[in-house]
Amino acid sequence: MTTYSYGAGLWLFGQFIDRYATDAYGPPVSTVEAIRTAAEVGRLSSLDINIPFAGNADGSAETVADVKAALDDTGMTAEAITPAIYSRVFQKGAFTNPDPAVRTQAIDLCKEAIEVAGELGARYVKFWPGQDGHDYPWQVDHDKVWHDELDGIRQVITSAPEMQFAIEYKLKEPRLHMLLANAATTLLAIDEIGEDNLGVVMDFGHSLFAKEAPAAALKAIHRKGKLVSIELNDNRLEWDDDLTVGSNHPVETLEFLQAVREIGWDGPLLLDQFPFREDPVAAAKLSIETIDAMFALLDRLDLDAVDAARADHDAMASQRLVMAELLGGLGPR
Amino acid sequence: MTTYSYGAGLWLFGQFIDRYATDAYGPPVSTVEAIRTAAEVGRLSSLDINIPFAGNADGSAETVADVKAALDDTGMTAEAITPAIYSRVFQKGAFTNPDPAVRTQAIDLCKEAIEVAGELGARYVKFWPGQDGHDYPWQVDHDKVWHDELDGIRQVITSAPEMQFAIEYKLKEPRLHMLLANAATTLLAIDEIGEDNLGVVMDFGHSLFAKEAPAAALKAIHRKGKLVSIELNDNRLEWDDDLTVGSNHPVETLEFLQAVREIGWDGPLLLDQFPFREDPVAAAKLSIETIDAMFALLDRLDLDAVDAARADHDAMASQRLVMAELLGGLGPR
Amino acid sequence: MTTYSYGAGLWLFGQFIDRYATDAYGPPVSTVEAIRTAAEVGRLSSLDINIPFAGNADGSAETVADVKAALDDTGMTAEAITPAIYSRVFQKGAFTNPDPAVRTQAIDLCKEAIEVAGELGARYVKFWPGQDGHDYPWQVDHDKVWHDELDGIRQVITSAPEMQFAIEYKLKEPRLHMLLANAATTLLAIDEIGEDNLGVVMDFGHSLFAKEAPAAALKAIHRKGKLVSIELNDNRLEWDDDLTVGSNHPVETLEFLQAVREIGWDGPLLLDQFPFREDPVAAAKLSIETIDAMFALLDRLDLDAVDAARADHDAMASQRLVMAELLGGLGPR
Amino acid sequence: MTTYSYGAGLWLFGQFIDRYATDAYGPPVSTVEAIRTAAEVGRLSSLDINIPFAGNADGSAETVADVKAALDDTGMTAEAITPAIYSRVFQKGAFTNPDPAVRTQAIDLCKEAIEVAGELGARYVKFWPGQDGHDYPWQVDHDKVWHDELDGIRQVITSAPEMQFAIEYKLKEPRLHMLLANAATTLLAIDEIGEDNLGVVMDFGHSLFAKEAPAAALKAIHRKGKLVSIELNDNRLEWDDDLTVGSNHPVETLEFLQAVREIGWDGPLLLDQFPFREDPVAAAKLSIETIDAMFALLDRLDLDAVDAARADHDAMASQRLVMAELLGGLGPR
Repeated sequence: MTTYSYGAGLWLFGQFIDRYATDAYGPPVSTVEAIRTAAEVGRLSSLDINIPFAGNADGSAETVADVKAALDDTGMTAEAITPAIYSRVFQKGAFTNPDPAVRTQAIDLCKEAIEVAGELGARYVKFWPGQDGHDYPWQVDHDKVWHDELDGIRQVITSAPEMQFAIEYKLKEPRLHMLLANAATTLLAIDEIGEDNLGVVMDFGHSLFAKEAPAAALKAIHRKGKLVSIELNDNRLEWDDDLTVGSNHPVETLEFLQAVREIGWDGPLLLDQFPFREDPVAAAKLSIETIDAMFALLDRLDLDAVDAARADHDAMASQRLVMAELLGGLGPR
Repeated sequence: MTTYSYGAGLWLFGQFIDRYATDAYGPPVSTVEAIRTAAEVGRLSSLDINIPFAGNADGSAETVADVKAALDDTGMTAEAITPAIYSRVFQKGAFTNPDPAVRTQAIDLCKEAIEVAGELGARYVKFWPGQDGHDYPWQVDHDKVWHDELDGIRQVITSAPEMQFAIEYKLKEPRLHMLLANAATTLLAIDEIGEDNLGVVMDFGHSLFAKEAPAAALKAIHRKGKLVSIELNDNRLEWDDDLTVGSNHPVETLEFLQAVREIGWDGPLLLDQFPFREDPVAAAKLSIETIDAMFALLDRLDLDAVDAARADHDAMASQRLVMAELLGGLGPR
Repeated sequence: MTTYSYGAGLWLFGQFIDRYATDAYGPPVSTVEAIRTAAEVGRLSSLDINIPFAGNADGSAETVADVKAALDDTGMTAEAITPAIYSRVFQKGAFTNPDPAVRTQAIDLCKEAIEVAGELGARYVKFWPGQDGHDYPWQVDHDKVWHDELDGIRQVITSAPEMQFAIEYKLKEPRLHMLLANAATTLLAIDEIGEDNLGVVMDFGHSLFAKEAPAAALKAIHRKGKLVSIELNDNRLEWDDDLTVGSNHPVETLEFLQAVREIGWDGPLLLDQFPFREDPVAAAKLSIETIDAMFALLDRLDLDAVDAARADHDAMASQRLVMAELLGGLGPR
Repeated sequence: MTTYSYGAGLWLFGQFIDRYATDAYGPPVSTVEAIRTAAEVGRLSSLDINIPFAGNADGSAETVADVKAALDDTGMTAEAITPAIYSRVFQKGAFTNPDPAVRTQAIDLCKEAIEVAGELGARYVKFWPGQDGHDYPWQVDHDKVWHDELDGIRQVITSAPEMQFAIEYKLKEPRLHMLLANAATTLLAIDEIGEDNLGVVMDFGHSLFAKEAPAAALKAIHRKGKLVSIELNDNRLEWDDDLTVGSNHPVETLEFLQAVREIGWDGPLLLDQFPFREDPVAAAKLSIETIDAMFALLDRLDLDAVDAARADHDAMASQRLVMAELLGGLGPR
């Protein structure tokens, strides 16, 4: 049995806002403060950190040294650096922006992320090009935006061949159609880019509402040798609700975690959640303890019997095995 | 703790067909044969039975006496009679058909259902007007079809004031827009019809993909005093997949079953499933044992703590309580 | 042929923000500035205005007098006042907040809206309780929140019997489950509240992604005599995308506008859009000219033929009539 | 301006059935009868024909000679042969069936399709493995079914290197998760199979409810040189409703048809519709005349202006151009 370490996207501990509660769901939170809150969870060892940093309450910027000190103090590491290539300046696109000057800005911010990742010892730089795509029919030249997306990514990753990069795919939001929408599209893009240092961040929730079977998508990415990181959460199958792990789809989450073990994954498992109205420490603890308990359940599961059921595509047999463990035993049959 | 008896829509044990496997997923099954298969489950005490009966292999019709004998033999009862007001003749609508002669046919079939219900001692006659609605924008006069729907139902139920009737609402399929689409629309229709002997069949899965919270819909129907029956299954939130209970949304199923207890329901719980590729007896057993185990879990649950969490709308607290029971305990916190 | 006047939710001309572009899609916009921008559209005569007002750039508050002056200057009127009962303080609910003190705050803000509405001569006060509902299974006592919602609304509307109030229903966002989710639920709530001065704001887009047929929902609200206002936009059927009118579902929009004429509506038609990345004046103009052109199309349409097709539920015949007008004629048949 | 010829999936003119109207929406229709009905449309020149043929009313089989004669009589050709690898025997999968004997049966039926395609001069053999996938979490070994799927397809296509083959992808139905779910997954499969004679059938509606932008998916397939055929219809974005062309999403259909021209497509455009309750000839005529009129509209459209708008990702500008053509001009601006 493998024991996994846990990480989190640092935004889980930051300030949340949406288009209605424009005064935000809570006060501003600096990157250093968010790190200190993350440490309160007690189980997190690594973080996915956005740049630019959130900044201090007095309006001053936070430095890499500030962040490094906070990580050192709390005994956590930077797992990934994610440049915010989806803020106001990038609203019409980062790598696909119609304005070449903005495309250059996006590339520059990514290069800055490479530097920060180097200084903080992060394992990878993450691309999440949330504004690259379109909203309306007839809005873009689909060939052009595809070309620009790959070109921008290529420029970044060839500038730092020793750094690992990874794309986190997502179907939509903030764009109604994001370009790198699902696992297969992202694998095609990576293949077309043709560099070795680019892979995939597999977000369970993104996979769910992209209408994939997450366990199948994980295995597909693994078969191509492109799995770089795994993020966990849950949703209602239509949107990136970023709920606590297992809260809505525990049976599929269990199947996914079993797939995580089957591919021999030994990296951390990251939380990607937006607890708008909840205490973030409580939300993170609940998710981590849920995952722990799910692995314990998987340890109890008769995997030979499960494998036999799957070999026969026997949904009733495998469901019975899993539901019996979930529910503390099924009745006499 | 209440102990519930179980029932099933008899179609669970019948022949399945869809638009692709036009040679059906198995051989024809007569109504009597379906009853005998239902009896193999061992836990079913009541059935929702369609009329016209499926018929014998030699093409001859099955009689009420045949069905009654099969029920008596197997020790089961008729819970409901559901007239098939969605077969070929009703493809453009039953109560809302543009042809008044077909509307009359629909009413006549429902009156036949009343007779059969009387002869078999069924508790209610169920309306499931699957063809009443529309597919295309601009297809119908929305006022007219609403009026016709209510008029047809009123004609049926006033013809047998002593009989209980119930509408099973559904968002879509076979129509892309069904008229009695959700709980609230159905309650409005019942109020407008204004007769006492008409209520609602609450199907958990129909509620899920109508984007309701099923526990909330159940309570809303109960508050109006209109709950007649409860059906259980699961789905992927977009369609009436009719999967085994708890297979996809066990946390919501648990919340729903707790709501079933909170309203003091003491009738049977019916299965509404379509195990196209599965053994129906295995599928029914799995669902029933799952529900059993879920009630046992609810018995273990600290409901005072749950109530306290709900009073504070504290999702993390109530999730923690429920997930701990589901997963055999959460880790140290 | 009726000529309609146009209005808009003033947010169309304000600052947009979401959870990713946390630096917003543009600079802050005061309520007065938004009114001046709205005036640039040239076709808007009335506005739905949020309180509290957005405030001036220097941090000072805008007064009712400021807003009134801006309206007078630009020749527009206040159609509605919408209290922002969905900001930070109301994140766990307005009328349903677990904290009675916050419920009182929500009621107080609504009463303030009544005053502002009086001073500005607005036709109605709008309830859009975006935070009233829940996100997780097991989060709330569904009976309690329903009771609280109705109680809060009743307290507000009975305090000003001469004022018109209206509920804008919505399925979800910001909550994953909003309490007043669809037309029928809202009609049930209004009936249960039992006061005459409460009706419905029918938002075409909300109706679409609540899986209603908007023309049918409009007629249902009208049949109950509860239609207070109409808002227009478009979306992708899963979320409140608030796109320009007709951009995705012009055929249904046409059906809806025809229904607007059929019920004899003579109020304004309001735009409810969020042009995050677009020029708001261009977005509003495009929608208004689209609606104009759609009414012109409806004037050309052979409505007797359409009615005949609808009387027969003949989708092919009515589609042919509508598509022929949309596409400048269909070929020889 | 290119003029396109039209074709259709022959099922459009056959017998429809679903799980509720189990007595079907009309009487049985032999393949020859369906061809004769297709000819009544007057605009169809090619057909996608299923094998096994539907069979005669007396239960006798129809021969290739019968079908060839009907095609010759009516002046139409076979565009494609589609083996029905989704009927009862294949309910647990065709190429992915857990039973190797059934996998062999599937391959044999495909080889029979190759022969029929040769005899009828069809341009391609189509794979639509509707039963290959899964319904429940934990049902299959995702690596194994992927391997089996590719292996089965490879066995078929390498047996006839001179024949063109094409996969029609689909997200779901009849399976809740189909294996070849979207364009990108299918392109990955084709790449992995590594043979030259395999491409993609792009179905507009399948693309829509797989949450793709169909114009973008078409271009992606074309960029890989894998486009073999195009099918048209419409739906409500959640399911394969197979409605008439443009009935729900005319703006996206126009964008798609423009993309069809931009890639230089010169093959036929096929209809894939299921007019359950409509006259199939009327449904086909309406779709064809709609497409005709859409191409005429595209001829009127100022494409230079559209291209300029798309180069700037200016949704308002391109929408204005398209809506103006759709609605017979927008008002003064």
